[in-house]
Amino acid sequence: MEEQVEMVGRAFVEHYYHLFDTQRSSLSSLYHQSSMLTFEGQRLQGVDHICFKLNHLPFDKCHHLISTIDTQPSSSAGGIVVFVSGSLRLAGEEHPLRFSQMFHLMPTLQGSFYVQNDIFRLNYG
Amino acid sequence: MEEQVEMVGRAFVEHYYHLFDTQRSSLSSLYHQSSMLTFEGQRLQGVDHICFKLNHLPFDKCHHLISTIDTQPSSSAGGIVVFVSGSLRLAGEEHPLRFSQMFHLMPTLQGSFYVQNDIFRLNYG
Repeated sequence: MEEQVEMVGRAFVEHYYHLFDTQRSSLSSLYHQSSMLTFEGQRLQGVDHICFKLNHLPFDKCHHLISTIDTQPSSSAGGIVVFVSGSLRLAGEEHPLRFSQMFHLMPTLQGSFYVQNDIFRLNYG
Repeated sequence: MEEQVEMVGRAFVEHYYHLFDTQRSSLSSLYHQSSMLTFEGQRLQGVDHICFKLNHLPFDKCHHLISTIDTQPSSSAGGIVVFVSGSLRLAGEEHPLRFSQMFHLMPTLQGSFYVQNDIFRLNYG
């Protein structure tokens, strides 16, 4: 059970940041109408608002480098919490930005997972 | 609804770190047998294991300073996810340590909340 949770969490993280860095508009496949994103304190709800935000960030090309991934089952309903730390390198910027992000994944009827909760913060040192 | 979630989250954070900094052994009141803690990658489950870990960290006196608190409702079952960033000052150490931590709070039958999921990471720059 715990191995499966970790496997799902790691596969999700790899998939999520690969999409973010290579075809950001496809992230819409991972959010539902009930999904919530808090991005640097700004709250957004629903796949449309969330993806509009993600597609209009003030940077275009970027690369996420993952440092740590922690996963736990969140509930008996099959949810998984995923906690990520890493750094974000923006095109043309010398210094990467450190970030932390948490996801709460919920199972879909089709046997996959979607993002119910997403909270992103840059780590200022 | 959202205001209530934020109020509960903020009150929890204040209570949690106050207990941590002043009477750490009392944190046991906030965890259940089903609770999970991942502390710097180490997984612990159940109030006893979690509180043993927290009460035997390699520092005694400490002070948490909170920078940001983000909250979201996690599910229709009344859960709340809380994402905290801040710094941790240890007695006798000049430089505070930056950290990020997430909690998944679930309602108790008594109308309070307990910590179902807790993930803590220091932020290395």
